[in-house]
Amino acid sequence: MKIISVNAGSSSLKFQLFEMDNETTIASGLIERIGLEQGIVTIKYSGKKIVNNLEVKDHKVAVDILLKALFENHIIETIDEIKGVGHRIVQGGEIFDSNCLINQKVVSDILDLQELAPLHNKAHVTGINAFLEVLPNTPEVAVFDTTFHRTMDEVTYLYATPYEWYTKYGIRKYGAHGTSHQYVSSICNHLLNKKDSKIIVCHLGNGASICAIRDGKCIDTSMGLTPLEGIPMGTRSGNIDPTIFGVISKKENKTIDEILNALNKESGLLGVSGISSDSRDIEDAMKSGIKRAELAFNIQVKRIVDYIASYYVLLEGLDAICFTAGIGENSSVTRKAIVDKLKVLNIYLDEDLNKLRGQNLISSKESSVKVYVIPTNEEVMIAREVIRLANLK
Amino acid sequence: MKIISVNAGSSSLKFQLFEMDNETTIASGLIERIGLEQGIVTIKYSGKKIVNNLEVKDHKVAVDILLKALFENHIIETIDEIKGVGHRIVQGGEIFDSNCLINQKVVSDILDLQELAPLHNKAHVTGINAFLEVLPNTPEVAVFDTTFHRTMDEVTYLYATPYEWYTKYGIRKYGAHGTSHQYVSSICNHLLNKKDSKIIVCHLGNGASICAIRDGKCIDTSMGLTPLEGIPMGTRSGNIDPTIFGVISKKENKTIDEILNALNKESGLLGVSGISSDSRDIEDAMKSGIKRAELAFNIQVKRIVDYIASYYVLLEGLDAICFTAGIGENSSVTRKAIVDKLKVLNIYLDEDLNKLRGQNLISSKESSVKVYVIPTNEEVMIAREVIRLANLK
Repeated sequence: MKIISVNAGSSSLKFQLFEMDNETTIASGLIERIGLEQGIVTIKYSGKKIVNNLEVKDHKVAVDILLKALFENHIIETIDEIKGVGHRIVQGGEIFDSNCLINQKVVSDILDLQELAPLHNKAHVTGINAFLEVLPNTPEVAVFDTTFHRTMDEVTYLYATPYEWYTKYGIRKYGAHGTSHQYVSSICNHLLNKKDSKIIVCHLGNGASICAIRDGKCIDTSMGLTPLEGIPMGTRSGNIDPTIFGVISKKENKTIDEILNALNKESGLLGVSGISSDSRDIEDAMKSGIKRAELAFNIQVKRIVDYIASYYVLLEGLDAICFTAGIGENSSVTRKAIVDKLKVLNIYLDEDLNKLRGQNLISSKESSVKVYVIPTNEEVMIAREVIRLANLK
Repeated sequence: MKIISVNAGSSSLKFQLFEMDNETTIASGLIERIGLEQGIVTIKYSGKKIVNNLEVKDHKVAVDILLKALFENHIIETIDEIKGVGHRIVQGGEIFDSNCLINQKVVSDILDLQELAPLHNKAHVTGINAFLEVLPNTPEVAVFDTTFHRTMDEVTYLYATPYEWYTKYGIRKYGAHGTSHQYVSSICNHLLNKKDSKIIVCHLGNGASICAIRDGKCIDTSMGLTPLEGIPMGTRSGNIDPTIFGVISKKENKTIDEILNALNKESGLLGVSGISSDSRDIEDAMKSGIKRAELAFNIQVKRIVDYIASYYVLLEGLDAICFTAGIGENSSVTRKAIVDKLKVLNIYLDEDLNKLRGQNLISSKESSVKVYVIPTNEEVMIAREVIRLANLK
């Protein structure tokens, strides 16, 4: 059975087509610069990669182009082969306790939440509507980045800000990367095969968040109202003293939106190093002895360790730490720097295992906590949710 | 030898007069509403308390009134008996690595730092100048809230914000309550009598901060650029998602200064409970079953535990946790709520000892970490620094 996973941005549409009988990717692709002068369409299948430059007027045209490419390259023969479409939605607020089939009410609720994710939710709806138009009889499912975190209790998700900010405007911690944390922790749970398991997932990519999971349920996570809170990321600051707004607005005559832009796009690894937001560039620069690259790396590692330590106590112990996403899966240097700081908790790395690629146990035999590398796959998780919620089995 | 400790605010002057031969307080007092229509002068000595309402035009008049009160009540006979004056200064920035004798350069440097502590540093200088005028031949010493934290390394004190914000504007973590953390940890070190001691001090008052101290040196602390960062306090939010500025500015049409005011004065225990910023009121309301009081209490406790856990790992183990300041010294309920969450680190309370008042070991024999209540005394610490720096011994 073929299911398509979609991540629609304001000017892009990313997709992955799965054969769910064996959960393999048949095709994937990215349509960029939608609505701009020159669009870029990239399709990958059977080891091939096709790139076309052409105008893509809007998201509906993007979906047309995508389906046409699937036909032309004989990836699908008829449109009916696609049994469902799953959409990644960044912000589900307090409305969406669970993922769900999309109908008009769901669409309007997603739009209502756009104030909490201005760049994302509106774009998601554009993507949903484009697929509805082209595939009107195919079930569509919304999979929220926040749903997995809905099990946090109010002591955890409330800020110590005026209570009315919560009741009037929904200001609270929602978290993000929920689909990834759910996917990785479910694999880890399977590996542990243990009741009441205690897991910390470190999703370390360009965006990065840490999640404390007990018995399959999220207990706490580092991202907050938005993905800006938590640990320093590629270009995001993570936690700061709020007074920085006061100083920067006076010194640089900046508005709140301009300061938020700097905290979202000019901070993190990029802001500290002055070199790059990409951890590979940072590691290369460290090898060349560039001090500010080392500083950026060490600042990120320290804050990650701070969260792991907090969650160790919050979970009242720990069975496993999982590393996932770009940095988590590929940077043995980052993993080593983090785990080496956890010796006081009797957590130890096997340095040889840590250097291998793929899904691996990388802790040593002496370690009282297992450390895994588990590649994430948000797209397949979304496709699984489509099958479950559209009753396709 | 008599030394006076001073804490000058914008419209107040708090003092404590010590006989340093035995470190006892001879007199203390508070002059409030300086520059306003009706001032309030409160002096305490020998178990007596005198309150006068009179106009106090400025800080110089406040110092005149204070000295006159000391004469009239025969607390001192001549002005020469006061051998030194110590001033508490909130922000020493990166200029002041250590406390120091005050001269014109020091005064101008303190003024230069006022952008990082707009309410405080200017008021401190007003206090310094008032004493200089009235006691021109008496040495004055500046004791900074930030100095004790100057041993943090740059990985700890830098934010993951654009590096230029640090080099141009001094945006970094400075911490606060340094004099208290230093005083309490020095007593704890004396009690432990151990090399390379690892101590966490929880200074929990209306303002509150946690400090990780290794071998007498600050390694990390929860307050940041200003005392707004860290754990929720009486009226301060502590850490938030910076995006809250964007939402509140749009929803309530508020400026940065107005939002910062709400985060400093309408948040924390007060903001969540809607009842009071005073932890005693919160505890009373909890007993009456008021849910939002319990919520405020639990939110503060959770965030304190998060920091203790982080610092446990950062210090690579722990010898002692010290509770101090208003809540830390007096609220057995708060102490119990915190320490009960640390069982996974083999930290246990003796519930009977926890209920006693005064300086006490309150951990049980089974606890692998000692837990102490140690009343803070920033004023005597300031007086000690006056003696040391003015070479009065």
